[in-house]
Amino acid sequence: MEDGLKIGIIGTGAVGGYYGALLVKSGFDVHFLLRSDFDHVRQSGLRIESKNGDFNLDPVNCYFRAQEMPECDIIIVALKTIQNNQLRDILPVITTSGSIVVLLQNGLGVEKEITDIVPQTTVMGGLCFLCSNKIGPGHIRHLDYGSIRLGQYQDDTFAVGITDELKKIADIFSKSDIPVQLEASLGKARWEKLVWNMAFNGTTVILDATTDMIMNNVAARSMVGEIMAEVIHGARVCGYAIDDGFVDLMLSATEKMVEYRPSMKLDYDAKRPLETECIYWRPIRTVTEKGHDMPKSRILASQLDFLDWRNRECINNVNQKDNLKI
Amino acid sequence: MEDGLKIGIIGTGAVGGYYGALLVKSGFDVHFLLRSDFDHVRQSGLRIESKNGDFNLDPVNCYFRAQEMPECDIIIVALKTIQNNQLRDILPVITTSGSIVVLLQNGLGVEKEITDIVPQTTVMGGLCFLCSNKIGPGHIRHLDYGSIRLGQYQDDTFAVGITDELKKIADIFSKSDIPVQLEASLGKARWEKLVWNMAFNGTTVILDATTDMIMNNVAARSMVGEIMAEVIHGARVCGYAIDDGFVDLMLSATEKMVEYRPSMKLDYDAKRPLETECIYWRPIRTVTEKGHDMPKSRILASQLDFLDWRNRECINNVNQKDNLKI
Repeated sequence: MEDGLKIGIIGTGAVGGYYGALLVKSGFDVHFLLRSDFDHVRQSGLRIESKNGDFNLDPVNCYFRAQEMPECDIIIVALKTIQNNQLRDILPVITTSGSIVVLLQNGLGVEKEITDIVPQTTVMGGLCFLCSNKIGPGHIRHLDYGSIRLGQYQDDTFAVGITDELKKIADIFSKSDIPVQLEASLGKARWEKLVWNMAFNGTTVILDATTDMIMNNVAARSMVGEIMAEVIHGARVCGYAIDDGFVDLMLSATEKMVEYRPSMKLDYDAKRPLETECIYWRPIRTVTEKGHDMPKSRILASQLDFLDWRNRECINNVNQKDNLKI
Repeated sequence: MEDGLKIGIIGTGAVGGYYGALLVKSGFDVHFLLRSDFDHVRQSGLRIESKNGDFNLDPVNCYFRAQEMPECDIIIVALKTIQNNQLRDILPVITTSGSIVVLLQNGLGVEKEITDIVPQTTVMGGLCFLCSNKIGPGHIRHLDYGSIRLGQYQDDTFAVGITDELKKIADIFSKSDIPVQLEASLGKARWEKLVWNMAFNGTTVILDATTDMIMNNVAARSMVGEIMAEVIHGARVCGYAIDDGFVDLMLSATEKMVEYRPSMKLDYDAKRPLETECIYWRPIRTVTEKGHDMPKSRILASQLDFLDWRNRECINNVNQKDNLKI
């Protein structure tokens, strides 16, 4: 292992906990920032259940405050995007000018936030194709998949290319059995992920359905195809050429999956806030600013905002007394 | 009362049962066609609970088969539109060339179906602003409102005007304490009703919400406003000029209502099939044929088709086993 290389994990949940544990297991020096699970993990470590084999890590380097952490060469951010406001306090104290920040988050515009906070670092975005769940404090169940599409961010640059920094991270991840695909254009990779996410994340929440139920219904399947086409049009408006055939590719891939609940559906079912801002509103606003509309996505985003609001019990007394034939 | 005038009621539910009972009460000769409630109503009559006073009608002229009914001068059709296929067997045997058929149904394209079946009759459409519910066999609870906007239909004619036949029906209804507003253009009246229905009927089903919950949430309220604007645009494409200000008018009117479940929400909650075809797909197709799109309405209609499909238990074994972070 590389001498003295320190890796920080911000957000030790289903994503950060899983990848962080794999890095520890293969010998890297990993430092976990925790909030709610801090006491449990300090006392009992991390427990990973995986189809690739279960394992425990005890002790692990864990911290309750960023100020107690060492400066890190690589910082993996795996918070939900709705928690990104915390990064303003965390990142400046654990990064140096040589640090690489790897954002394992969905949606649009997240890298920009990071470069605003720590402009001297290298920022990357990673799109995870991972099926895992935190089932208890420090206890993660990995069900399937696990690859990451990784690209480097640079303001206003469509395609940074495959840089040495990207290769360095890919090397570290590969040594830890984390499959990585490097992307010359992070923006395009993000939009390609949005094609699936904007179609299925919202729809599974709104229709209270798993992906297979949607695929098995003619109307719903056709609808997610229409939404995908709208996102592809949005991507083109933003300069990323995604082929129309990508819709069928995504639908076929989804067909091969068993019944899945996407991350937004898991969040909704657990009554956690939804990532509607980064996964829907930012792409919609970006496209709107360029003079185009995403009417279908707007409907989904508005419905999600309503459901999110009610899900977190902003309405306490719902009475359904009267009935109107109208 | 007019000598020998016979009125037939097709569909003795919350709408047809209520209006039919008012007509009986004021002395008209009314004949009810019933299916599921036939035995009950033949033995015990109709029971109306209303804010305007409760009353029973026993006996009432009721029939299980159209063939047993007399020919009627006025036929009030108050079936759900999804049952309109029954009219092909019913209408020819109870109408004459002088009959007036009054359709008390939502949506688009329903009059055309009737003129195809009984082209020799006069066909009218009535839009009910009625808050009532069938709460048991032959047992109707009227909660509020009750007025009807009534217009005459003639193929390909934008505005037939206020005809003598319309005045005749208005006179009969008025004598029975049913407020009627006559419409020179049935098409425009239907589109104006669609502005509210396409926004709220679907949304209350999809979001499992009453109208007041939607009005109290910024995102949902803004969304129904957007859908209304889309329907108004659709109406214009079809030649009916509805002012943009109609959106605010409808929103204000909805704000003054207490928490309501529109008819589609009542149908959904009772696991009855939804009137998505007439209330959504026909307007959407009509506008599409004229070269314009209704993308927001399409999303709602597709979501409704999925929910309707699942609601009527086409899916028997729903398992939600796996979770994918995607």
